[in-house]
Amino acid sequence: MSDKFLWKGRIEKEFDREAFSFSSSLNIDCNFFEEDILNTLAHSKTLNKIGIISEEEIKKIEYGLLIIKDKIERGEINFDEEKYEDIHSFIEFNLKEIIGETAEKIHAGRSRNDQIATDERLWAKKACDILINLIIKFQKILAYKAEEHIYTIMPCYTHLQRAQVISLGYHLLSYAEGMERDKKRFLFVKEESDDCPLGCGAIAGSTIDLDREFSAKYLGFSSISANGMDGVSDRDFFLDFLNACSICSLRLSRLCEDLFLWSSKEWNFARLPDEFVTGSSLMPQKKNPDIIELIRAKSSRTVSNYLNLSMILKALPMAYCRDLQEDKASVFEAYENLISSLNLLCKIIDKMEFNVERFEKEILDSFMWATDLADYLVKKKNPFRKAHSIVASLVSYIEKENVKISDLNLNDLKKFSDCFEEDALNIIFNLKSFELKKTYGSPNPVFVKKRIDYFKEI
Amino acid sequence: MSDKFLWKGRIEKEFDREAFSFSSSLNIDCNFFEEDILNTLAHSKTLNKIGIISEEEIKKIEYGLLIIKDKIERGEINFDEEKYEDIHSFIEFNLKEIIGETAEKIHAGRSRNDQIATDERLWAKKACDILINLIIKFQKILAYKAEEHIYTIMPCYTHLQRAQVISLGYHLLSYAEGMERDKKRFLFVKEESDDCPLGCGAIAGSTIDLDREFSAKYLGFSSISANGMDGVSDRDFFLDFLNACSICSLRLSRLCEDLFLWSSKEWNFARLPDEFVTGSSLMPQKKNPDIIELIRAKSSRTVSNYLNLSMILKALPMAYCRDLQEDKASVFEAYENLISSLNLLCKIIDKMEFNVERFEKEILDSFMWATDLADYLVKKKNPFRKAHSIVASLVSYIEKENVKISDLNLNDLKKFSDCFEEDALNIIFNLKSFELKKTYGSPNPVFVKKRIDYFKEI
Amino acid sequence: MSDKFLWKGRIEKEFDREAFSFSSSLNIDCNFFEEDILNTLAHSKTLNKIGIISEEEIKKIEYGLLIIKDKIERGEINFDEEKYEDIHSFIEFNLKEIIGETAEKIHAGRSRNDQIATDERLWAKKACDILINLIIKFQKILAYKAEEHIYTIMPCYTHLQRAQVISLGYHLLSYAEGMERDKKRFLFVKEESDDCPLGCGAIAGSTIDLDREFSAKYLGFSSISANGMDGVSDRDFFLDFLNACSICSLRLSRLCEDLFLWSSKEWNFARLPDEFVTGSSLMPQKKNPDIIELIRAKSSRTVSNYLNLSMILKALPMAYCRDLQEDKASVFEAYENLISSLNLLCKIIDKMEFNVERFEKEILDSFMWATDLADYLVKKKNPFRKAHSIVASLVSYIEKENVKISDLNLNDLKKFSDCFEEDALNIIFNLKSFELKKTYGSPNPVFVKKRIDYFKEI
Amino acid sequence: MSDKFLWKGRIEKEFDREAFSFSSSLNIDCNFFEEDILNTLAHSKTLNKIGIISEEEIKKIEYGLLIIKDKIERGEINFDEEKYEDIHSFIEFNLKEIIGETAEKIHAGRSRNDQIATDERLWAKKACDILINLIIKFQKILAYKAEEHIYTIMPCYTHLQRAQVISLGYHLLSYAEGMERDKKRFLFVKEESDDCPLGCGAIAGSTIDLDREFSAKYLGFSSISANGMDGVSDRDFFLDFLNACSICSLRLSRLCEDLFLWSSKEWNFARLPDEFVTGSSLMPQKKNPDIIELIRAKSSRTVSNYLNLSMILKALPMAYCRDLQEDKASVFEAYENLISSLNLLCKIIDKMEFNVERFEKEILDSFMWATDLADYLVKKKNPFRKAHSIVASLVSYIEKENVKISDLNLNDLKKFSDCFEEDALNIIFNLKSFELKKTYGSPNPVFVKKRIDYFKEI
Repeated sequence: MSDKFLWKGRIEKEFDREAFSFSSSLNIDCNFFEEDILNTLAHSKTLNKIGIISEEEIKKIEYGLLIIKDKIERGEINFDEEKYEDIHSFIEFNLKEIIGETAEKIHAGRSRNDQIATDERLWAKKACDILINLIIKFQKILAYKAEEHIYTIMPCYTHLQRAQVISLGYHLLSYAEGMERDKKRFLFVKEESDDCPLGCGAIAGSTIDLDREFSAKYLGFSSISANGMDGVSDRDFFLDFLNACSICSLRLSRLCEDLFLWSSKEWNFARLPDEFVTGSSLMPQKKNPDIIELIRAKSSRTVSNYLNLSMILKALPMAYCRDLQEDKASVFEAYENLISSLNLLCKIIDKMEFNVERFEKEILDSFMWATDLADYLVKKKNPFRKAHSIVASLVSYIEKENVKISDLNLNDLKKFSDCFEEDALNIIFNLKSFELKKTYGSPNPVFVKKRIDYFKEI
Repeated sequence: MSDKFLWKGRIEKEFDREAFSFSSSLNIDCNFFEEDILNTLAHSKTLNKIGIISEEEIKKIEYGLLIIKDKIERGEINFDEEKYEDIHSFIEFNLKEIIGETAEKIHAGRSRNDQIATDERLWAKKACDILINLIIKFQKILAYKAEEHIYTIMPCYTHLQRAQVISLGYHLLSYAEGMERDKKRFLFVKEESDDCPLGCGAIAGSTIDLDREFSAKYLGFSSISANGMDGVSDRDFFLDFLNACSICSLRLSRLCEDLFLWSSKEWNFARLPDEFVTGSSLMPQKKNPDIIELIRAKSSRTVSNYLNLSMILKALPMAYCRDLQEDKASVFEAYENLISSLNLLCKIIDKMEFNVERFEKEILDSFMWATDLADYLVKKKNPFRKAHSIVASLVSYIEKENVKISDLNLNDLKKFSDCFEEDALNIIFNLKSFELKKTYGSPNPVFVKKRIDYFKEI
Repeated sequence: MSDKFLWKGRIEKEFDREAFSFSSSLNIDCNFFEEDILNTLAHSKTLNKIGIISEEEIKKIEYGLLIIKDKIERGEINFDEEKYEDIHSFIEFNLKEIIGETAEKIHAGRSRNDQIATDERLWAKKACDILINLIIKFQKILAYKAEEHIYTIMPCYTHLQRAQVISLGYHLLSYAEGMERDKKRFLFVKEESDDCPLGCGAIAGSTIDLDREFSAKYLGFSSISANGMDGVSDRDFFLDFLNACSICSLRLSRLCEDLFLWSSKEWNFARLPDEFVTGSSLMPQKKNPDIIELIRAKSSRTVSNYLNLSMILKALPMAYCRDLQEDKASVFEAYENLISSLNLLCKIIDKMEFNVERFEKEILDSFMWATDLADYLVKKKNPFRKAHSIVASLVSYIEKENVKISDLNLNDLKKFSDCFEEDALNIIFNLKSFELKKTYGSPNPVFVKKRIDYFKEI
Repeated sequence: MSDKFLWKGRIEKEFDREAFSFSSSLNIDCNFFEEDILNTLAHSKTLNKIGIISEEEIKKIEYGLLIIKDKIERGEINFDEEKYEDIHSFIEFNLKEIIGETAEKIHAGRSRNDQIATDERLWAKKACDILINLIIKFQKILAYKAEEHIYTIMPCYTHLQRAQVISLGYHLLSYAEGMERDKKRFLFVKEESDDCPLGCGAIAGSTIDLDREFSAKYLGFSSISANGMDGVSDRDFFLDFLNACSICSLRLSRLCEDLFLWSSKEWNFARLPDEFVTGSSLMPQKKNPDIIELIRAKSSRTVSNYLNLSMILKALPMAYCRDLQEDKASVFEAYENLISSLNLLCKIIDKMEFNVERFEKEILDSFMWATDLADYLVKKKNPFRKAHSIVASLVSYIEKENVKISDLNLNDLKKFSDCFEEDALNIIFNLKSFELKKTYGSPNPVFVKKRIDYFKEI
């Protein structure tokens, strides 16, 4: 630990060992090594532009940084938490070991405050891109699986009660549709992160004439932050990132809940691929859906990460406080969990098998045609409330009298309304009633196919 | 309670009184009365288009809905929780009282699921607009106040330690800059909400040939949802709304923390307007900043509202479950708290007075020039680390030898580096050192003024 | 609003109207009217003891307070938020209207800080008692219902996969057992709240010689707080109260989830009483378990309330800040939700009907005997891992060969291990295998009955 | 990974590599190695008692487990996440390597469900003890530091406004008092954890006649769980543990906030020991209180951990689900953070120096005597409201007329009330007015000393 601080100078006693461990962030911010190297290069080039770093020196720096990056990637140097307190010290001290005193020039006009704020934004932009691509991959898998099941009938539930007949394809697409918003949300986060704070210094910029537009462009940013205090203390983009991860994770938790139900003995509708189930150490007969349970559970962690950062920011006085260091662990954890969850679900959905006959008999013997039958009466000029009431009476009658639905005939119906004609029975007996749906966004295969085509092309 | 249900028919026992109170949402969703009336009108016109509602009937409905709206606004009917379970029943039953049986036609092809989902999006769009305007108002107030204080010096803090000299104007603008993102975020939420679920029915659309594009256009939506299950069960836009409220509230909590510190005796920098402070029931001398403390505290509530909705959605099976009803209270609460907080802060900042001389003497006698002095040495070709170390030694020396800073002379400086020239003393003695800053985004008045001009024009 | 402040005097401008609405707490703390009256009486008697209030005056005060209490209970005065900022002002000003200037004496040596802290603890003690009694009531209902179902077989699930056969009685008791801890937790909160802060003043006690032991005893407290700053700023007991409500609510959410599953068509195991289900405005055939969905959802709110108060307290400087006012709404909300949830579940469980034959056939045809069969082999001296493996092979064989379980015979078993004897078949064919369980805490009816007897007597 | 599963047997495909990494818990539950070894020994002895494990075998097992423990402690075997999925597999497979097939006997009648539930409770009991002792240590340090400052005057704040004069000793003790509750809370958690689930099996106990009382006693538990489903699925004690950690962490965050303020230039009241401050990479003059900022920030994480577990448990169907695995990371994190925070604060408070003259002049020149002066008038028979009003007028007069407080004389006072006598000036001029306090729990040194003595003896 001893001398590897960027800030010694005036504080005389040695930093407490335990305090060092407690405050070191290298085990976390080492994830930023690429960003920090790039960032350092950009800043050095800016200093070079105004003569503070010479042509020769900039070459040395570039060379040294490349060596460090290479060594890290090959595993030749590692992030020694005993020695360095953060990734910034790590880079600067290692650079010094390679290129000597020139390394001491790179921090002019820069603070770790604007440096980390820049690293974080660079990382966030990259992470958003990766997630967006992974979401697209998952949408396509859902769409291809949906394509196989445009005519696989199943109940759609409200309140976990069977409500209306839909297709499994329609159900699977509902998640893909939600993910359209997830993509837009990550795109929003990416745009928000695309504002470069480099050159804000600690809080108030610099008396050195740094060309902030230059370094921002070098790093691929579209704009530069307009106020240094805001630039270094803003973590909105990380909250937005965590919000985006949370919402997407919550969606996955709902999908997992459905899979969890479907693979129960009671539902008996889906069979998780064997590569993703586990057994029991005690009960030899078990096949447990552990992976989807864990994905479901991890959504809680992601939401907790959002709470953590919110609570850190609450009532924090301006501008920079060390509390902000605690942002990164939460963000990385949410990112890793979402990446793993999406990756695993891609495989699971892809290999999943469905018991396509499961609901056929039961749907025939259910009341899920009730809404359609009410619509029938509406079309025959009954006010909806009356239609609703007629059908409710019919349902009660069938239940009470224990009528077999397949035995229903026109006379039975006529008891409840004269409007019923022969074609009403078609509604009751039609297994694939979703083909009768007229509205866009319904499970009618015409609309479902269109959306599948859309997702195949994204 | 007795007969005011939209769903009786088949369930024979009377609904439990206590269960009714527990589940009724009218006291909350009455906030949607305008949206629900509009929504009902749009749907009725759609039914009219395909002949299910006649020309004459649609006129009646329009008339009846207008009467209801008018009566509510005049306070002539009120939301009787004993009688109606939600705003939908309230509207339908009241309509029936006014126009008779025609009212029974309006629910054809519609479910309360798509109805509430539409109301919520209509409301969210309106709420975003209101909040964006209020944020703009507050930004302008900050900018005008900042304009008065472009040259009011104060320390900028990191770790609550005095770091560098800035102007109050610069500090005030840092909040306004953050609010640029708040506006974009609410705009994003508005766009996300701009997708109409009306016509999704309960989950699976309808066999009635509803023109969803038509009703969506009538209601001012840009698009229609592509999957009914997603359309009725999606609450992403509300999570995003709560996220936007949370981030903005957290920003306000940081502003309040600053005001809280500034109005302490120790800081003695700001004086809250008397209209916004309270006294003590026990201590006659007190002036307490209760309002800013409450705004600070309420940010916690807003974050909790986000968590509440997240936790409700977690692992909720598809598609609609009654749990979703619990979304609204959280959203309204967050909205009301943010509106009040912004309104109050507009007034408080507008009337706030600052003790402009407060820091003048102390800044002269501080070390806040240290970074600028290091920059000076950097410009004289010292590597930054060396410059940092020279200045740190100078600071230690001044502290240990108890040198009065105003007594420093060139000889003192020379002891630490030969590079120091007469102009180095200007850096130390310059009260308004922020005028020396060169970088965009710094407190240099040139840049601060530009941003003030920008905010005046938004 | 104008003159109804306890603190005017030195602040000259009129309090801002909107700030007043924002900061008024009467609509919330009016719930404390009984506690505040009692508290005021206790303090007045303490002042009487040392002569600051005379014998005659104390009688007047007692009389006046009784009148106020009576009027509130009869609804003759109401809590006018336009006029009073909190319950303390409300009581003091109303008292003055009844008994005149004597009312102005009661606040000597007291601050609203210790006053509210005392009200809150009085309330918490009362609330804990009410909740404990309600929990006991629910435990008894669970126990009586369990008694009817000691032999009703059902699968017990792990990972929502059928694991072993248990009785419904055993399942129902599992919640009652958890509630034993809930009671202890509320008892802990009650004990924690039983420490009287009255006499702490604003933060630092008083120069008036108040007998704190006396007032504490009068109010039924066991001890008095040992440090005024801690006494007025401590909200631990409210966090503990919210924690206790959260844990209990989460338990209820798990119970509701089970009921939610059981009353699905797929499970078809329980039938919610008609008084607690609702229908659909669109789908005439539906019976929806809205009440249990709402109870489940409200657990989220209770946890959010805990988070809200935690977030308020985080990093709040000592001692009292107005932020603390925001504690009450969260606490009352959690309390009300838990009371309603328990009350409703008492009724629901009491009237619930179970489909007792539901699982009989399926259990006979399942592998849920696997663990017991492995135990059988263990008793025959097989190492458990070997036993586990033998049974796993048997299960695979049955599955692959499509053997009907009821057709299994000893020869089949012998293929897998010589240890199997005739009695092994009993394990496989025994429907009520839980009667074979030997360990305490198992579903063996012997143990289940004992626990039922226990709960009947609590 | 390949064959190191306790549950293979019937599942044919190889577990997915990524799924394995995602679901492995060894990197977390390796913290339980001691508990799991002890647990395994206890269970083996129980099996020995009924002859399933022989005398010879139990000796082997005991020997093997000791070897494993020893090797872990010496670092001779490590927790290889590629090979084992959890601590249970790790122990069992390593045992088998050492003692051979006997190891395969230990899992009879046991499931990982009751095994982990037992490990967790053993750990929780230990963790509570460690934390209680650490809290006591910190209380003593606070008390000893308080003893040095019984007469160090400082303002006590409400709303961060100076309210009344207290001593630093009194302020420091306020935290120690709060910690009395923290200890009780951890004791409660310990008692709650003291109920042994071993023998509950997966959920429903065992057909093997395990003496649960025996193994519980062996492990030091006071009681055994009464229902197997509750025994394995209950995580109340972990929620309670997280609640206890949260409340204690929030208290520390408030202490840190005070230290944060006190060590600002504006407060200038405390000097953090140099071993616990850091410098700036850019600003050579800075001394930053990073450690207390991080302790403050970490309280957010602990509260988030509470949310995480709550959210995992919400609506989780009975009995065991894999989601429960996610409990441990949160609990360990909260524990580690609290241990570190307490350890660091012990050192910081111990070495902290206070600027004891800081407030002397300012207190003399303040209005903090106002309450005491009102009390004075109350003792002279003025109703409190009148007294409050007289003093408020006096304060206004002094402010408006710019009277120097030290110049006040009896005539000035007499203008406001005839009741003022010479001794009233003593109240105004008495620097250490807290010596006049009469109530228990006030900063009167008599009471403060008593509490210090108390804390020295705990």
